Order: sequence, then structure tokens, then C-alpha cells
Amino acid sequence: MSALDLNSDLGEGFGVWRLGDDDALLDVVTSANVACGFHAGDAPTMRAVCVAAAARGVAVGAQVSYRDLAGFGRRFIDVEPDRLADEVLYQIGALEAFARAAGTRVSYVKPHGALYNATVHHDAQAKAVVAGVRAFGDLPVLGLPGSRLLAAAGSAGVEEAFADRGYTPEGTLVPRGTPEALLTDTAAVVERAVRLAQTGEIVAVDGTVLALPARSLCLHGDTPGAVHHARAVRQALAEAGVTLTPFTP
Amino acid sequence: MSALDLNSDLGEGFGVWRLGDDDALLDVVTSANVACGFHAGDAPTMRAVCVAAAARGVAVGAQVSYRDLAGFGRRFIDVEPDRLADEVLYQIGALEAFARAAGTRVSYVKPHGALYNATVHHDAQAKAVVAGVRAFGDLPVLGLPGSRLLAAAGSAGVEEAFADRGYTPEGTLVPRGTPEALLTDTAAVVERAVRLAQTGEIVAVDGTVLALPARSLCLHGDTPGAVHHARAVRQALAEAGVTLTPFTP
Amino acid sequence: MSALDLNSDLGEGFGVWRLGDDDALLDVVTSANVACGFHAGDAPTMRAVCVAAAARGVAVGAQVSYRDLAGFGRRFIDVEPDRLADEVLYQIGALEAFARAAGTRVSYVKPHGALYNATVHHDAQAKAVVAGVRAFGDLPVLGLPGSRLLAAAGSAGVEEAFADRGYTPEGTLVPRGTPEALLTDTAAVVERAVRLAQTGEIVAVDGTVLALPARSLCLHGDTPGAVHHARAVRQALAEAGVTLTPFTP
Amino acid sequence: MSALDLNSDLGEGFGVWRLGDDDALLDVVTSANVACGFHAGDAPTMRAVCVAAAARGVAVGAQVSYRDLAGFGRRFIDVEPDRLADEVLYQIGALEAFARAAGTRVSYVKPHGALYNATVHHDAQAKAVVAGVRAFGDLPVLGLPGSRLLAAAGSAGVEEAFADRGYTPEGTLVPRGTPEALLTDTAAVVERAVRLAQTGEIVAVDGTVLALPARSLCLHGDTPGAVHHARAVRQALAEAGVTLTPFTP
Repeated sequence: MSALDLNSDLGEGFGVWRLGDDDALLDVVTSANVACGFHAGDAPTMRAVCVAAAARGVAVGAQVSYRDLAGFGRRFIDVEPDRLADEVLYQIGALEAFARAAGTRVSYVKPHGALYNATVHHDAQAKAVVAGVRAFGDLPVLGLPGSRLLAAAGSAGVEEAFADRGYTPEGTLVPRGTPEALLTDTAAVVERAVRLAQTGEIVAVDGTVLALPARSLCLHGDTPGAVHHARAVRQALAEAGVTLTPFTP
Repeated sequence: MSALDLNSDLGEGFGVWRLGDDDALLDVVTSANVACGFHAGDAPTMRAVCVAAAARGVAVGAQVSYRDLAGFGRRFIDVEPDRLADEVLYQIGALEAFARAAGTRVSYVKPHGALYNATVHHDAQAKAVVAGVRAFGDLPVLGLPGSRLLAAAGSAGVEEAFADRGYTPEGTLVPRGTPEALLTDTAAVVERAVRLAQTGEIVAVDGTVLALPARSLCLHGDTPGAVHHARAVRQALAEAGVTLTPFTP
Repeated sequence: MSALDLNSDLGEGFGVWRLGDDDALLDVVTSANVACGFHAGDAPTMRAVCVAAAARGVAVGAQVSYRDLAGFGRRFIDVEPDRLADEVLYQIGALEAFARAAGTRVSYVKPHGALYNATVHHDAQAKAVVAGVRAFGDLPVLGLPGSRLLAAAGSAGVEEAFADRGYTPEGTLVPRGTPEALLTDTAAVVERAVRLAQTGEIVAVDGTVLALPARSLCLHGDTPGAVHHARAVRQALAEAGVTLTPFTP
Repeated sequence: MSALDLNSDLGEGFGVWRLGDDDALLDVVTSANVACGFHAGDAPTMRAVCVAAAARGVAVGAQVSYRDLAGFGRRFIDVEPDRLADEVLYQIGALEAFARAAGTRVSYVKPHGALYNATVHHDAQAKAVVAGVRAFGDLPVLGLPGSRLLAAAGSAGVEEAFADRGYTPEGTLVPRGTPEALLTDTAAVVERAVRLAQTGEIVAVDGTVLALPARSLCLHGDTPGAVHHARAVRQALAEAGVTLTPFTP
């Protein structure tokens, strides 16, 4: 593997409120998961992120969510699948308008927060997300290897890995709130990224070496430390000769 | 004038709530002003209206609004023009996704409620609406003759008339809440429509004959009586040999 | 049992939208479950229902819900219990202001929709609802016999029965969407109500006689048929000598 | 004048989003204008601020707003006065529940943002705010000297001054966006506060000495510099022998 995509959540403010350092991350990532207004991201924010992403050649993806501003899309909602598909389509369509106005396009979709977690196992919601994407067009869907989401997406599914999350020997993420859920050491995060890019391997918390060939690596950006990690990852990958490029055509 | 468009507001429910008789009106109009989620119209409603409109050959237009579900978009909001332009773009983009999924396109834009009224005189908001439309593409904008909105839209502006509103001798609408604001007699509404289609004339409340050549006639649909009016207008126009057809290509 | 309370959901419009026939039901019930703004019920609606309830001597209860206007509170949301307790408190407080302004008080609490269903089994959310109620004061909580909600409420719990829902032999409700979920025959609904009031018994769908002594009977009101049922129930109970009175002091 | 109240806007986050440094300001002010959910301030935030204020003996006031999360209550909305009064009552009631749960009470009301500005001149909205307050109870209303709001409030009106805003010779605030709208020099802010407390005088931007005896001084807190100002003001007032105490009983 000599090429890797770096993706991160962006545009997650709302109204007067801000979250994360969009400018810093847009200089690091190759794909921007842009909030579409359902968990965060009002219209001016969406425009600004699309313009900034287009100017840097960063790919624009729709970070679709449950309709839940008060909970930032972090709570599971037992929404009917048909409605969920429609809400996914709504969000992609809204973002596409800003992407086009900025001279680019929505080139992929990634569910946010609780919807991302739900669609690992919840088949009906996973299929609904994919149905919403397909109603829009032929876009790749970014997700967790082994998830129902990627199963539903078929050949449109794109596997991602996480730079700073602990993995179990089975290849799933160590749940948040558990020790070893998060890699906090910059050197460890960087080593994870470089090894993944070069060999497609990730080392689990017990030392098991997992074959998890991911086309994209997710970087978090909502803490100052995470931005530091993100920059270190990018630099190390570049020094290791890895081509950083969007996974989308 | 031998051709006329009939437009009406549609898809103005939200969640469990319904407003107006969409099915009845879709059999009458040639253009559907579809609510886009800011004053009404959630994702499933938008999908359903787009599908039904496409099946009947009814043109789909974006009925853009202030962000105001609680007020149904009927209160003036002193929103910054840049934000308003972005919010207009967001709404058009969201609706376009449903229109395309239904095999059609958003083919025009019409502001809703307080935004419609504000852009008669409020130049900055009128220009913002047009800026939002242009950021999306080259779409016609439906509005009141003489409004700042149509001035801002230039050659994209399309004049409409109202089937059931009283006109002053100056060609403006008699304000709601005033006697003669509304035509309630079916025969009068029908006569208005046919004369407008045949001669481009509207008779004001004092008898003045106004030259107001409109390419579209707005029918209201949120009362049972209005649906009756709408059907009567369509039938009378058809019998008078007027071609009922969307004003958009 | 010679006294019974009749409760119904009221004030479930929002903005321009209406749901159900509040005026008709306020003439039937003795307790009004008033929507508090989270699934329905904006401020003017809450005021109007409180004024109308107070004028008729109908008790005012807070119909608390998940924060979910788009879903009418009908979808389970996996909200953190602490936040849920705070949101319950917020809703009760808001309604109390309208109740006091109308010369009455919030005298009980009943969860709405998906929150009602969730708190049958979801212990953490049931305890959160009760915690929110207790943070407000010493109010009764209306719920399903055997629910975690009533277990959490302890002596504040008040059992209710449903006039038009089918019961299993175990005393639970036949799920909606299942045959026999709803009693549609007016005579059957009336018989259910009178027998419950006189004997504390409900007949399950298989003929099993259940002892379910309820202090309140829930009437639905969001369909014309349901209003007809509600009126018939009230008349039959009155004719049977049952005292119709709020369960609250 | 030997006593002064210091008030500031608090609890203006929403969901995951934060704004301002509530903890720092709660150590400075004697009155907390708590956001009530319409422009900011969800239920957990309201609870936390009430608890922290009560623990410090800081008075809790309801910072009521237009219903406008997306605009942070900073845009004028032409809401009908009756609805506005109801919305004010709703917000006060919700906050009262948290205040009581924390062992205190809502002891005053202050409009936020665009509603504050509108009620300087807009008589109908000013009267609506006061009507909403009176429907709740006999609470003081904090406002600008000479405003319609204070005129409507009558003896319940309480005049406030601004520590860091420039005043015109007529005693109105220099509009934001104008040079001299904001005092940025700490020494000038402190001098303003001490002189006001000792003499009831404020010096306008042209040097005119205004007699503006205010019972409360508003401190801003949404910038790091403003927190620094706030602390400096408190220390200087204390050193000058001014008693810092809530204006409410």
C-alpha cells in the first residue's frame, strides 16, 4: 500500500458555536466529512468548509446524521428506515449544492456518531443509509470493516481505520470509556498510521497483528491534542513515502 | 395570452402534521411550490410530493423560507443577507436531490410567506435570495410584479398574479385583514383567471383595469374552499381554450 | 370502584399545525395530558389548553417527551438518563407557568409516545423520568401497571388502563400493527370502560379476565372515531353511576 | 450609591457546544442572566448554572429570547406580541424549575440580544415581554434606561448600565460596528464602573457627563478579555468600598 486517504469530521459548528479547528485540519486531511445540518453544520458553515476544501483539493464527503442538534447526533434514534433514507438524501442534496457552488462535488458519504455506530450492527438502518445514498447517485460509503453498512453498500463500500482508537483482537474498536480505547501517545498514533499505510496491518491492544487494509484513515480533530496528532501523522506518512490522496476518483 | 401556469404551495406538513390537500391540488396545478424544510416539509414529505408531481408532469419549484418552523415562515426575520443566501442554496439543494430521485428537477424558486413579502421591498434580502438561487444555477424566480425580488432577478424573474387576492389600483395586493383582501366568490375568482389568461388584465377593487401580464397564477390550497376555487379555475381556463402548462421549459 | 379518571393527550399541535380535537376532548376528560413543547405543543397552545382545562375543572398533567418534534416523540432515543431527567424537569416547569397563569397547577406527569413505551422496560430511563419529576416536586406519575416507570415512582405511581387497546392474557398491550391491537367497536370500548370502573377487570383478547384496577382510563382523541368513543364512554360511565373525577387531589 | 449589582449572560452553550467561561464569571457577578433554551441553554446547562449560582449566592435571572437557536437570538423576529408573551412565560417557567431544584428562584428577567434591542423602541414587543413576566409573577425586569421595555415594566423596571460600551451624549449606546462602540482599555472600563457606583455618572464618548444611576452593571463574558475586564471591575469596586450585591431582594 503506497497511498492513503486521511479523513476527518469538519464543519461541526452551528450558529455562533464552533467545534474543532477546521482550518488546521483542512491542511492535514485529504477528505473532509462535512456536517450537513442534522447534528451540526448550518448553511454558512457548509459553504465555508466546501470553499476551503475545494481550494486545497480536499475531497468533500457528506457526514450524514440522525436529526439531532441537541444531542450532536450521538444518541441512537429508532427512526423508521424509510424516513432515514429520505433524511440521508436530504443531507447529501443540501451539501451537494454548496460543493458545486465551490467548484467541487460531494464525492462520498460517511455516517456520523450514533448512526455510524448503529449501522455496524443494525441492518435495517444500514440499508436505509445506503438507499439514501443510492437515491442520490453512485457514491462510495465510508465505514467500518465488517459493518452491516459496508455489507449493504457492496462494491461502493470503502473501509477505513482509526488512527487513535484501540482495536480488539477481533478487529473491532475498544469501546469508549474503556482503558486502551484511545491512543494518546503521539508516537503510537504515528506508528499505527505508517504501518497501516505500508503493510495494511494494525496492532490490537493485546499485540495481535490484524490485517485491516484500509483505504482511508480517520483522524479526530475536536481536541488540540488531536490536531497535533493529525499533523504528526501526515508528516510521518509523507516522510515514509506514502502518497496522501483522496480515496475517491 | 393563450397559455398560463397554475402554481400552489405544497408539501407544507411536518412530521405527523398535515396542511392542505396536496393530492387534490396536484391534479389542478402545473407548478408545485414545494416546502424545503425551513418553514415546513420534512424529508419524506418532500420525496412524496416530488414523486407525485413528476408522475403528473407538474413542475417542481423550491419554496424557500426563513428558518422558522415554529412560525411557519410567516414572521419577518432580520437575517443577514449572506446567511440568507446560503440558506436559500441549502433548501434548493435538498429539494433537488428529491426531484432528481423522482426523475425531474427543481425548475424554479419562489420565496414563501414573510420572505416573499419582505422581498417586495427589502432590497438586501431580495438580492440575497437571488444570490442563493444563482449559486445553485440558472433558475427562474417567481415573484410579484414590481418587487425588488424580480428587479434583482433580472431576466430570470417571472411575474405571477393571485387568483383570489384583491388588487389596489396601483397593482399591489390589498393587505390581509382588510375588507376586499380576499375574493371569496367562486365566479369572481374564475372570471379573474380567465380574463388574466386571455387579456393580461386584472380588475382592481375600485374597478380600475390593470395590465398585469402574468405567466403564472397562484392558487391557494390550505382551505377546502380554496381547493374548490382551484378546480373551478382550472376547468374554466380549459373551457376557455387556455393551455395550462408550466412556465418553465 | 365507583370513581374513575379519564385522561387524554391534548395540545398536540405546533405552530400552524393542529392535531386532534382539543375542545371536544376537554368536554369529555377529567385529566388533560398537555404536550410541553418537546414532541408538540408550542407556548400559545399550552396556554390555551391550560386556560380551557382550568375553566372546566379538568386537571392539567405534563405530557413529557423525548426532544423530537420531527418524530412527534414516537421514536426511541437513547438519551443519557441525566439529560433526560433535566429535560423532564424543563418541560414540567414550562407547563407549570401556564397552569399557574390559568389559575391551576400541574398535578401529574405522564410520559408520551416512545418514552412511555421505553419506560415500561428501560429501567434507567424510567428512573430518569421519576428523577425529573421529583426534582420538580411531589407529583403523581401515570403509567402502565407493571412498568419500570411505576416501579421507580413507588407510591407516586398511578396505574392507568386503555379504553381501546387490546390486552394480552399477561396484561400487556397487544402491539400496534397486530390484529386486535385496537378495539374499534364502540360498544366494546364502552363495555370495557364500565366493567373496569365497576369491577377493576379487563377482558383480554383471548377472553381471560384480568384484574387491573386502574385509577385512570386513557382515551385517544386524534381521530374522529376516537372522539365519538370518548363521548360514548363518558356517557355510559355517568349512566352507570361512576363518578368521573381527576385522580389527583 | 454604595451598592451595585454585576450581571452577565451565562449558560449560553447548547448540546456539545460551549460559549463563554461560566465558571469564571460566576465568581465575579452577583446576578446571572441564564439562557432558557430559546437562543441557547439546554436543560443540563440550565441545571448546572442554577446549581453553581445558588452555591455562590448569585441571583438567577431569566434571559428570555426570540425562538432562534440558529441565530443565537440576534436577529429581530416580527413575532406576534401574544405569542411573544407566551414564549417569555414558557422560558421563565422552565428556568424556575431548575432554580427551585437548586434551592433558589428566578428573581428577575432580562431580554436577550435582538429582543433586548427591539424592546428599546418596539412598544408592542416591549409590552409583550412585560405581559409574559407578569403572567409569571411580580418580577423585576432589567433594561436600558429610556427603553419602551422599562416604560412598560413601570415600577418593576430596573435600569442597567454597560461597563464596556460607549455612550452617546444622549445616553444611548454607540452602535456596534462604530468606532468607540466598545471600551477595550481595562483602566477605562474600571474607571467607568467605579464612577458609576460612586456618583451615578457615565462619561459619554464626547466627554459629556451623563447622570445614569443604574442599579446593575452588565459585564460581557464571551471573550477572554472580557473576563479579565470583569475581574478587574469587581476588584476595583470592592477596593472602592462598593457593596456588590444582587439588585433583587
